[in-house]
Amino acid sequence: MSKRILLIGAGLSTTHLIEYLAEQGKKHNWTITIADNNETLAKSKAVFTNTNAIKLDINDFEKTEDLISNHNIVISMLPPALHINVAKICLKKNKNLLTASYLTDEMKALDSEIKQKGLIFLNEIGLDPGIDHLTAMSIINRLKAEGYYIREFESFTGGLVAPENDDNPWHYKFTWNPRNVVLAGQGGAVKFLQEGQIKYIPYHKIFRRTEVIEIDNYGKFEGYANRDSLKYINTYGLHDIKTMFRGTLRRPGFCKAWDVFVSLGATDDSYIIENSENMTYREFINTFLAYHPTDSVEIKLKYYLHIDQDDQELWDRLEWLDIFKPIKIGIKNATPAQILQSILEKKWSISYEEKDMIVMWHKFVYYKNEIRNELHSSVVVKGENMLHTSMSKTVGLPLGIATKLILQDKIKSRGALIPILPEFYLPIINELKNYGVNCIEKQII
Amino acid sequence: MSKRILLIGAGLSTTHLIEYLAEQGKKHNWTITIADNNETLAKSKAVFTNTNAIKLDINDFEKTEDLISNHNIVISMLPPALHINVAKICLKKNKNLLTASYLTDEMKALDSEIKQKGLIFLNEIGLDPGIDHLTAMSIINRLKAEGYYIREFESFTGGLVAPENDDNPWHYKFTWNPRNVVLAGQGGAVKFLQEGQIKYIPYHKIFRRTEVIEIDNYGKFEGYANRDSLKYINTYGLHDIKTMFRGTLRRPGFCKAWDVFVSLGATDDSYIIENSENMTYREFINTFLAYHPTDSVEIKLKYYLHIDQDDQELWDRLEWLDIFKPIKIGIKNATPAQILQSILEKKWSISYEEKDMIVMWHKFVYYKNEIRNELHSSVVVKGENMLHTSMSKTVGLPLGIATKLILQDKIKSRGALIPILPEFYLPIINELKNYGVNCIEKQII
Repeated sequence: MSKRILLIGAGLSTTHLIEYLAEQGKKHNWTITIADNNETLAKSKAVFTNTNAIKLDINDFEKTEDLISNHNIVISMLPPALHINVAKICLKKNKNLLTASYLTDEMKALDSEIKQKGLIFLNEIGLDPGIDHLTAMSIINRLKAEGYYIREFESFTGGLVAPENDDNPWHYKFTWNPRNVVLAGQGGAVKFLQEGQIKYIPYHKIFRRTEVIEIDNYGKFEGYANRDSLKYINTYGLHDIKTMFRGTLRRPGFCKAWDVFVSLGATDDSYIIENSENMTYREFINTFLAYHPTDSVEIKLKYYLHIDQDDQELWDRLEWLDIFKPIKIGIKNATPAQILQSILEKKWSISYEEKDMIVMWHKFVYYKNEIRNELHSSVVVKGENMLHTSMSKTVGLPLGIATKLILQDKIKSRGALIPILPEFYLPIINELKNYGVNCIEKQII
Repeated sequence: MSKRILLIGAGLSTTHLIEYLAEQGKKHNWTITIADNNETLAKSKAVFTNTNAIKLDINDFEKTEDLISNHNIVISMLPPALHINVAKICLKKNKNLLTASYLTDEMKALDSEIKQKGLIFLNEIGLDPGIDHLTAMSIINRLKAEGYYIREFESFTGGLVAPENDDNPWHYKFTWNPRNVVLAGQGGAVKFLQEGQIKYIPYHKIFRRTEVIEIDNYGKFEGYANRDSLKYINTYGLHDIKTMFRGTLRRPGFCKAWDVFVSLGATDDSYIIENSENMTYREFINTFLAYHPTDSVEIKLKYYLHIDQDDQELWDRLEWLDIFKPIKIGIKNATPAQILQSILEKKWSISYEEKDMIVMWHKFVYYKNEIRNELHSSVVVKGENMLHTSMSKTVGLPLGIATKLILQDKIKSRGALIPILPEFYLPIINELKNYGVNCIEKQII
């Protein structure tokens, strides 16, 4: 019997998802409707015989409801805050739903109703969250089944530039939403568990409390802590664990240099800089430094932030961004964060033919008979170009495969779910291998 | 003709206000009604022949309206957010109103209605805001009248402990709301003008960007920047000024030591510390430090915050607070800020017979014929005890004197006002002298 899939939102991360659904759809007799408020964008993605595009304003409740009624399953790639509107219609119209976003309290509140109707609302089935859950739970459950006690778990993910296009001193380019990169770490203290002790890091210290990791063939990375690692203790069923830490990966040296902007206050998004339009990059940096009648911006900055005179690596990164140059900002009524983003976008931009790279790394320390074992697992995926990015692949394929599993009635759970059970991780990890998304394990001895 | 004054709110800062109104009331035939939700408190303050106490729940709209109808003028000493409710009733019932709080946008929005009815709603007529406006505007207008160009203005105020009771290494005690002291500087970046350049300081740097000042007979102080100094450029009519800076005073060394708590994240009020009840002070400090298998909390703290091994003054302050001791916190579901406050309240408490001290200091740099002049003005007031505090005196007397001026019909302005005109500052500064509140000027040569 033919099935109709509705994809709402045709943004950057949908390239591989649509390709996967179209390819699988040919085998399984699916048609895919790509709905977006931007009709041109939707049409540009609906290039397969079993795909079609439609303009949809998600605020047009009636049209959205009609469209959902007309399909068997819905994938929402809208901004996270909008999923709940789609979810409520799916509930009313008895349709299953998938998203790559965090399971919210609002969505959880629908859980009993979703279950009652025998539906599946699967969330967190992209990369991070998504592949992190799949690969972590696959290993956690295996180790538990083998009788091990898992004492430490650390997990890091980063969206980076591939080594072949890594040609700037930050070893970083904007491969996804620049605003999220500038605001990273804001919005609440970091919480994690280390050796049985709960630890807290305020925003202004996050980028100075990093950890270095190394992945075979890819070299060294550094990780800074993500918001709340504690909630994963329950999610992953690791109740006696002593260390639980989740973070974000950058190349070594990035965080120390980024901390300059954090320390200055240049990532603040809460107020508007006076006369930002006519200010230069150099004047922008100077607004955060105390007045001095003769010292230069460079000298004041070094003195203020205790930057060693011979810390050439750090200084090269700052100078390379042109922040000391008298270049006009040219943006009206901008916050510090918006100004910094515009400066970075001129230097960290990535061109179509360049490749991004996704790196995910887990560390497990586990015991049996008082013998310590350590296992690292890693997933590294490179993009082909900035349309076929590794980000689009690693977000889209888990979504696509999960859609297939649900359409084929292979998922037994019901309710507001996240993919932590074997019925998700076994088939999805297995099928991801066909697309070059491999989880490599390394026993540390 | 007899006049009836209604004072709503009988908290700590009303002691001198009530004494002043009672004393003046005997001459001028006034009676004063002291209304508070806490009837015992109201009664304890209504000890004069022309004062009486009444229980008032400000949420009881009808009773509040009746009470206001029955009086000639209203002084609101309620928490700032509640003034607007009183203001709306005063507007309806054609009564003048005074508060010691900042003029809010909500209050400003009533301005044309207040004017239409020929009323006066006088705000910011306490100490800071209050005496700062009076003393600043008195000097600014005098210098302008003498043909000077005012190039720089700095203003600092501090609520401190009097020298005779200054017996701890922080040279600080809680002479007013401890919570406000712990949260000081939070809620938005600092903004000020320095040598024609607008400067911004993020919260985590405020206590490292201090200025030292000295006042004859009282020694040295240090000042940290207050939230938004820029708005005073308009308020004070100083449109061509090059430096505009407002701040808060502490004794030297306080800010560097306080910055330890800011850097750790121990002043954060946005999340709850897990199991705070059973945690010790030492464990509290340790939650902000990275795990180390052998290093002590003290060593980790010194290393993390780059505290010199021989910075004995800073270390004495920290140790004196007992933060390294295994003392139980004993407060459930507490934020870091709440825990820190409870630790400080054990050490920075001030007893009844001790004296507080108010210090206010302005600096003016002004020019005529390219000749630079510098003037400092200072107000220092000591309390008698913790009932008759200098805070109560310097908040209450300006309120009381302004009430008299309004009752005697000596104020010509109408609307939602702050006391920046001569009709306020000339008589109030003059009468304050009778109570030992003097503004001392010192020409710098």
